[in-house]
Amino acid sequence: MSGSAPQTMNLPVDLNAIRAAHQCIRPQIHRTPVFTSESLDKLTGAKLYFKCENLQKTGSFKFRGATNAVFSLTDEEAARGVVTQSSGNHGAAISLAARRRGIPAWIVMPRTAPRAKRLAVEAYGGRVTECEHDIASRDAACKSLQEKTGAILIHPYNNERVIAGQGTAALELLEEIPDLDIIITPVSGGGLLSGTAIASKSLRSSIRVVGAEPKNADDAFRSLAAGRIEPAAKTITIADGLRATLCPLTFSILRTCVDEIALIAEEEILSTMKLLWERLKLIVEPSGAVSAGIVFEKKIQAEGKRIGIVLSGGNLDLDHIPFSRSS
Amino acid sequence: MSGSAPQTMNLPVDLNAIRAAHQCIRPQIHRTPVFTSESLDKLTGAKLYFKCENLQKTGSFKFRGATNAVFSLTDEEAARGVVTQSSGNHGAAISLAARRRGIPAWIVMPRTAPRAKRLAVEAYGGRVTECEHDIASRDAACKSLQEKTGAILIHPYNNERVIAGQGTAALELLEEIPDLDIIITPVSGGGLLSGTAIASKSLRSSIRVVGAEPKNADDAFRSLAAGRIEPAAKTITIADGLRATLCPLTFSILRTCVDEIALIAEEEILSTMKLLWERLKLIVEPSGAVSAGIVFEKKIQAEGKRIGIVLSGGNLDLDHIPFSRSS
Repeated sequence: MSGSAPQTMNLPVDLNAIRAAHQCIRPQIHRTPVFTSESLDKLTGAKLYFKCENLQKTGSFKFRGATNAVFSLTDEEAARGVVTQSSGNHGAAISLAARRRGIPAWIVMPRTAPRAKRLAVEAYGGRVTECEHDIASRDAACKSLQEKTGAILIHPYNNERVIAGQGTAALELLEEIPDLDIIITPVSGGGLLSGTAIASKSLRSSIRVVGAEPKNADDAFRSLAAGRIEPAAKTITIADGLRATLCPLTFSILRTCVDEIALIAEEEILSTMKLLWERLKLIVEPSGAVSAGIVFEKKIQAEGKRIGIVLSGGNLDLDHIPFSRSS
Repeated sequence: MSGSAPQTMNLPVDLNAIRAAHQCIRPQIHRTPVFTSESLDKLTGAKLYFKCENLQKTGSFKFRGATNAVFSLTDEEAARGVVTQSSGNHGAAISLAARRRGIPAWIVMPRTAPRAKRLAVEAYGGRVTECEHDIASRDAACKSLQEKTGAILIHPYNNERVIAGQGTAALELLEEIPDLDIIITPVSGGGLLSGTAIASKSLRSSIRVVGAEPKNADDAFRSLAAGRIEPAAKTITIADGLRATLCPLTFSILRTCVDEIALIAEEEILSTMKLLWERLKLIVEPSGAVSAGIVFEKKIQAEGKRIGIVLSGGNLDLDHIPFSRSS
């Protein structure tokens, strides 16, 4: 796909939708800062621009898509409340967006979700319903809640308004740094990467859009290579936000306007995370570090390039920091 | 002292010196951002403005004073190089400031200093000379280096240009948020608190200037209470940047224009640090957390107040994060 003009105009989400999303969510979100680091530039030979979505409200970019979806509902729809399934950042994001709209949010979480994440959801006013860990149980719990409450389902990424919202981070980044050669985000279900690709290719057709994915959860890589959605890997990654698989909507967008999916090993995610903490003085979660990791670990040709890197989130259990030994 | 008009005009450093320092260092430093947090405001009942000197070059405010001192030297003086003693942030700051001026920097460090700090100094081009841990050995090593090389000593805080440089953080903060009721910085040797007090009281005479100090290193508290410089405590604090004692210069400034020194316990420093990491997604070192800690831990009357908090630094050993257990 590299080098070919993208057909973003035929996609179900376009630049206008992303601009409209930005208009809608702007009063609710942080316009996150763009960090630079002389030492990391020197280390990589590139010019790096870090879009700090770890500093977004609720600690991740998910608040953009969630807010766009929740605030795009009609008053009648909104009055029914919203429901979603998430063991992580999307649940917190939907909870806060709903609270701000003044409507209830039901969040289906697996019984095994970390206590910290459940507490975060509850702190933002989300009502947690527990389910078993498997996808069937989650779907069933969601469906049952929808039936019982009439709430509207807001899927974490199989939703055009969520995708348009996630695209606003790239929109802001390219407004500030228009002449990027490359833009990189992590890929899981593909919502962030889809929105980023559409915004970026529409604003700057020459830009190279790269998804970063853990080797241990390489289903997006395999899916784009095979030309069909491949199942999730059975292995486990420390990047707990990147375990979802593409849906037909995100798959169709990524096929059209993503140039490459680059993979990164577990130990490389950890060392990247530590380097970001050390040099940027920012808390970035493992899932948020993979996009920087493919540059630090030379998975792509970065030298001499101007590269936008979305640091997607900063939520993790600070009682158990994976690279810290007891002192 | 509370409520009385400060006599900042009789002090050896005044607002003009701080403005001149800002002019001098502006091309070299980061204008650090001011962070806010709805959740921390809610928690404390105050409106908090965090001046993020952990995001300053070299990871602490020390780069301001070091740069002002190094760049204020005449060409003849500068050609001789600079020397200082520091086991921490001042050494790194002097090293980078000297490299930018194109002159050598000799840093006297105790043999027992953490390897990470030595590596940081060397990464910025500082030449490390080891000495024993006691003050006499440090002084002797400094003196011997000065004699051998002709280098100019830049003391970490017993230096008017260093103090003027440190005052520029408060200058920037009050430019952005002019109507603060209280401003808080940590206190160790007193350079940052001195510069902050002079800038703040000069720009806004009604502001309350508070120093934050670990209970385990409460010599500034005891010195201001006794009206004379008291020796350092023998106990140890996790806030490794706050173990120095006042000098006559900083003592005289603090007596005149600091309203209060508030103390904080070790476990409170730790929980504050963790809360800052969690809510601001910023790496703040223990010494940098004490100023926020006296608000979080209700050591001062904060409710309803607009409070500027200087997060002074973000350098610590990420392999041994004190609140993280092995996972």
